[in-house]
Amino acid sequence: MGIVLGPNRYGKAETRLVQVHRDGETHGLVDFNVSIALSGDLTATHLTGDNSGVLPTDTMKNTVYAFAREHGAGEPEAFALLLARHFVATQPQVQGATVSIESFAWDRLGPHSFRKRGDFTRTTVVSVSETATQVVSGVSGLVLLNSTDSEFHGFVEDGYTTLKPATDRILATAVDARWRHAGDGGDWAVSFQGALDALLAAFVATYSYSLQQTLYAMGSKLLEARPEVAEVRLALPNKHHYPADLSPFGLDNPNEVFIAGDRPYGLIEGSVVRDDAPPATAGWWL
Amino acid sequence: MGIVLGPNRYGKAETRLVQVHRDGETHGLVDFNVSIALSGDLTATHLTGDNSGVLPTDTMKNTVYAFAREHGAGEPEAFALLLARHFVATQPQVQGATVSIESFAWDRLGPHSFRKRGDFTRTTVVSVSETATQVVSGVSGLVLLNSTDSEFHGFVEDGYTTLKPATDRILATAVDARWRHAGDGGDWAVSFQGALDALLAAFVATYSYSLQQTLYAMGSKLLEARPEVAEVRLALPNKHHYPADLSPFGLDNPNEVFIAGDRPYGLIEGSVVRDDAPPATAGWWL
Amino acid sequence: MGIVLGPNRYGKAETRLVQVHRDGETHGLVDFNVSIALSGDLTATHLTGDNSGVLPTDTMKNTVYAFAREHGAGEPEAFALLLARHFVATQPQVQGATVSIESFAWDRLGPHSFRKRGDFTRTTVVSVSETATQVVSGVSGLVLLNSTDSEFHGFVEDGYTTLKPATDRILATAVDARWRHAGDGGDWAVSFQGALDALLAAFVATYSYSLQQTLYAMGSKLLEARPEVAEVRLALPNKHHYPADLSPFGLDNPNEVFIAGDRPYGLIEGSVVRDDAPPATAGWWL
Amino acid sequence: MGIVLGPNRYGKAETRLVQVHRDGETHGLVDFNVSIALSGDLTATHLTGDNSGVLPTDTMKNTVYAFAREHGAGEPEAFALLLARHFVATQPQVQGATVSIESFAWDRLGPHSFRKRGDFTRTTVVSVSETATQVVSGVSGLVLLNSTDSEFHGFVEDGYTTLKPATDRILATAVDARWRHAGDGGDWAVSFQGALDALLAAFVATYSYSLQQTLYAMGSKLLEARPEVAEVRLALPNKHHYPADLSPFGLDNPNEVFIAGDRPYGLIEGSVVRDDAPPATAGWWL
Repeated sequence: MGIVLGPNRYGKAETRLVQVHRDGETHGLVDFNVSIALSGDLTATHLTGDNSGVLPTDTMKNTVYAFAREHGAGEPEAFALLLARHFVATQPQVQGATVSIESFAWDRLGPHSFRKRGDFTRTTVVSVSETATQVVSGVSGLVLLNSTDSEFHGFVEDGYTTLKPATDRILATAVDARWRHAGDGGDWAVSFQGALDALLAAFVATYSYSLQQTLYAMGSKLLEARPEVAEVRLALPNKHHYPADLSPFGLDNPNEVFIAGDRPYGLIEGSVVRDDAPPATAGWWL
Repeated sequence: MGIVLGPNRYGKAETRLVQVHRDGETHGLVDFNVSIALSGDLTATHLTGDNSGVLPTDTMKNTVYAFAREHGAGEPEAFALLLARHFVATQPQVQGATVSIESFAWDRLGPHSFRKRGDFTRTTVVSVSETATQVVSGVSGLVLLNSTDSEFHGFVEDGYTTLKPATDRILATAVDARWRHAGDGGDWAVSFQGALDALLAAFVATYSYSLQQTLYAMGSKLLEARPEVAEVRLALPNKHHYPADLSPFGLDNPNEVFIAGDRPYGLIEGSVVRDDAPPATAGWWL
Repeated sequence: MGIVLGPNRYGKAETRLVQVHRDGETHGLVDFNVSIALSGDLTATHLTGDNSGVLPTDTMKNTVYAFAREHGAGEPEAFALLLARHFVATQPQVQGATVSIESFAWDRLGPHSFRKRGDFTRTTVVSVSETATQVVSGVSGLVLLNSTDSEFHGFVEDGYTTLKPATDRILATAVDARWRHAGDGGDWAVSFQGALDALLAAFVATYSYSLQQTLYAMGSKLLEARPEVAEVRLALPNKHHYPADLSPFGLDNPNEVFIAGDRPYGLIEGSVVRDDAPPATAGWWL
Repeated sequence: MGIVLGPNRYGKAETRLVQVHRDGETHGLVDFNVSIALSGDLTATHLTGDNSGVLPTDTMKNTVYAFAREHGAGEPEAFALLLARHFVATQPQVQGATVSIESFAWDRLGPHSFRKRGDFTRTTVVSVSETATQVVSGVSGLVLLNSTDSEFHGFVEDGYTTLKPATDRILATAVDARWRHAGDGGDWAVSFQGALDALLAAFVATYSYSLQQTLYAMGSKLLEARPEVAEVRLALPNKHHYPADLSPFGLDNPNEVFIAGDRPYGLIEGSVVRDDAPPATAGWWL
């Protein structure tokens, strides 16, 4: 019986890269937050501080900036693949690399002027080992609201239940969604836009009896729209909007005035998958 | 010689109001964060806990929701004026009321479906006393970037100066701007949009030798565009983008790859005013 | 080939409970942030919005407050076990319950006066199914610093490496640690304090050649000190402190003046386990 | 009639300085977040981008690190005075300097090991002009709670009042306090500790009928304890704790189980001054 090292990894988190792409007078802008994690046989550094198998995290940071110049940063999935493959290919002691990128969008104001959008963050998590590659795309912080076409009733009641059934309520959520690609190629920009459009369209079109129903509709719509995606995972906080009780003031409230609550909040998590999807080759999320 | 009560006020901060406006099938959405502060003779409650001059902050919260139903929440300046005037008019012990509103914008996705924007927060601060009314509009968190047309040189150098002159740099900032209206009426929506457009246009059009120059251009452009505005105040953090030094890797970096810094950051604060502007009647900002 | 529902769960997140325990004049204070997630056969609500198997998340919130009154909230692990077992035992459609609690500590200032501490958050994640119970304790946000006795050299160098070897550096981290108990009983307060003491003692006593070495020392020390713990997982951000280059000002810097960096940061993640530890019965972390 | 530049200033915000003081084997630690703002005749840079009167903010950052080595960083008031006086004395175009410091405390774990405290941030704002010096000390984020000895009743009621009088409630707040010194000398460490002790003692000892009463007690107690302080300003958010209604579950709630609310919150702001206090020579706060 003894104490041993279990699974481990290390890397550089949150390297902030901004790249200006010049096409004559007109500039393009890429804004990434890059996190890298490497795994392999790291027993020596854990047990004795022998760093002969440790590529410094500072080097990972340098590689991000150098690769932006050498190869160009564009679609986050492609840049993450480039980085992850580089570490596995060039460092014999590295058996796995995970590169996560948050990508921030900017709207164009002029040939070289931009305004940052804040409606969501595009994400990717790429995992490369010596035998497998897995690409996950996603979106976080996408806040959506339907002001009607949402009900909630017919639920279980126990001795602690006081909630009244609702036949017309606000449904609001901050979408955190990730989807796993079956392969590791394709047009990432088209794929992302199509996936996002599907999520939005499903949210808008679903007459909802539960946030779970909306979640499933969003996931299945994305899978229907994007054949290259094998599985979708969603975490949907239920951003509660409580109708204000105005009766003490002699006023009615026909679902018009709401208190936007902070905490607590419902949290619905689930996945939607193709029944013939290949299994994931690396841990990802949820 | 003794110890006395100095200036003071109290109120309810951050009441979160969401109002759905129904026009048949098509809904509109108002999303406010309302803060209220009242002043008057509040000596008794401070010295002895005698609350006979204290309107509960809970009542202020109730008033926000009730007024949304009674009068409707639309433009934040108008709603803030309504609330501030109510407290001064109906509470004899209240001599001044300040109502601050953060307004969050949503884009329409369908007749009753919305997506929250995150590119900036619209703000207002309305101060009403028995003799004066002051309306301040503003914007916060508006992140802008010019990828060229910015220089910085010719500055003072002392024994602690190591900065090199720059003839082509990224200029980026998160605009926090507030502007004081000369009066208390007008079309608030048109005025806000015009002010925002002026700020954006000045940022885009200014070939900048310092962030101060950009600040002054933004403020003066806003005053030129909006005659109803008497004074503009801006706080512009200089969101530094440092060119990555790629020379150790045998690479040049022709102003293409940047490290986006977090801290420290430059902070430029200033005001631009009409020389015949009436004086402010209440404290506001900076 | 088709699209199907994958793993899913739902619940109420971040229910904020404060309980005052009165022992005559002397009061005690419990301050919890409770999150609950339930799983079971939830296909109907996802596919058709049939909520006949859905206990409202509002009911979960009510149960937190009612259980505090009925049973008392004290050690977070015990309260989480109580809640998780309740849902599995009383809701036939619920097959698994996970209850996570953040616990905030307060220092006593008087018989009924308290000051909130902010040095760390105590955490627990309890997972109960019909066949297994798993208890995880932890700590997050515990910021530690050694101002010497840390080196880093002998690392791998590739074409992107510019880092210089360090023979004396600051080692600082914000400890996020979780440890899985072998059983589901015992004195949770004693166990937590012993685990925390072990983590601190190992951080202080380890002459470190890498943050990985410190991580392993912290994990193994905890396992040595607490026989009831089967496995420890740690995520240690390397909060970099860069020596300021003062040479342009004619000053040396004998490891005295440091720039505290924000981003990027190293991130070391790893687990330390007993080789005869029973396997985890629920997903937890990392 | 025209458009002119109004009040303005510029500087470097949030320079993060950590200094290790070595006394043989035993180390001391100083952890500061330093912000500097300079004013003077800055018209040229605003109007034409002529930077001949602009000391770069990068130089201000360098000065912070160099001064730590040259003079040592210890008490934040002293270090801020040193910096502010330097800029006014050495830069003829600078007429005023404001240096703000957030100071973070660490507890000792060993001769060179430390654990960061998180119970509050110590603050200072020093303003130096050619003719006056003003020192403000303060504390922010100090969260205090009394679990009894707080009532609230006898308040104004209008048509929007639904609050019930309370004869026993939780009183909790996050203290943000600043106090202006009459002079610019003295033992800053002793003064700060005495001021903090006075604030805490007053909070604990006050049987409170309103948070305003507690505010005044805290301010006056500080003035009584510290003759070197001329004025105290406090902003006290009322961190509401709502008794949970457990009656639907057949349970009473004798002020034992509380819902800790996030928003909205009461906000009480006020100052307590000596009636013979010299006037402030620079703007500070509230």
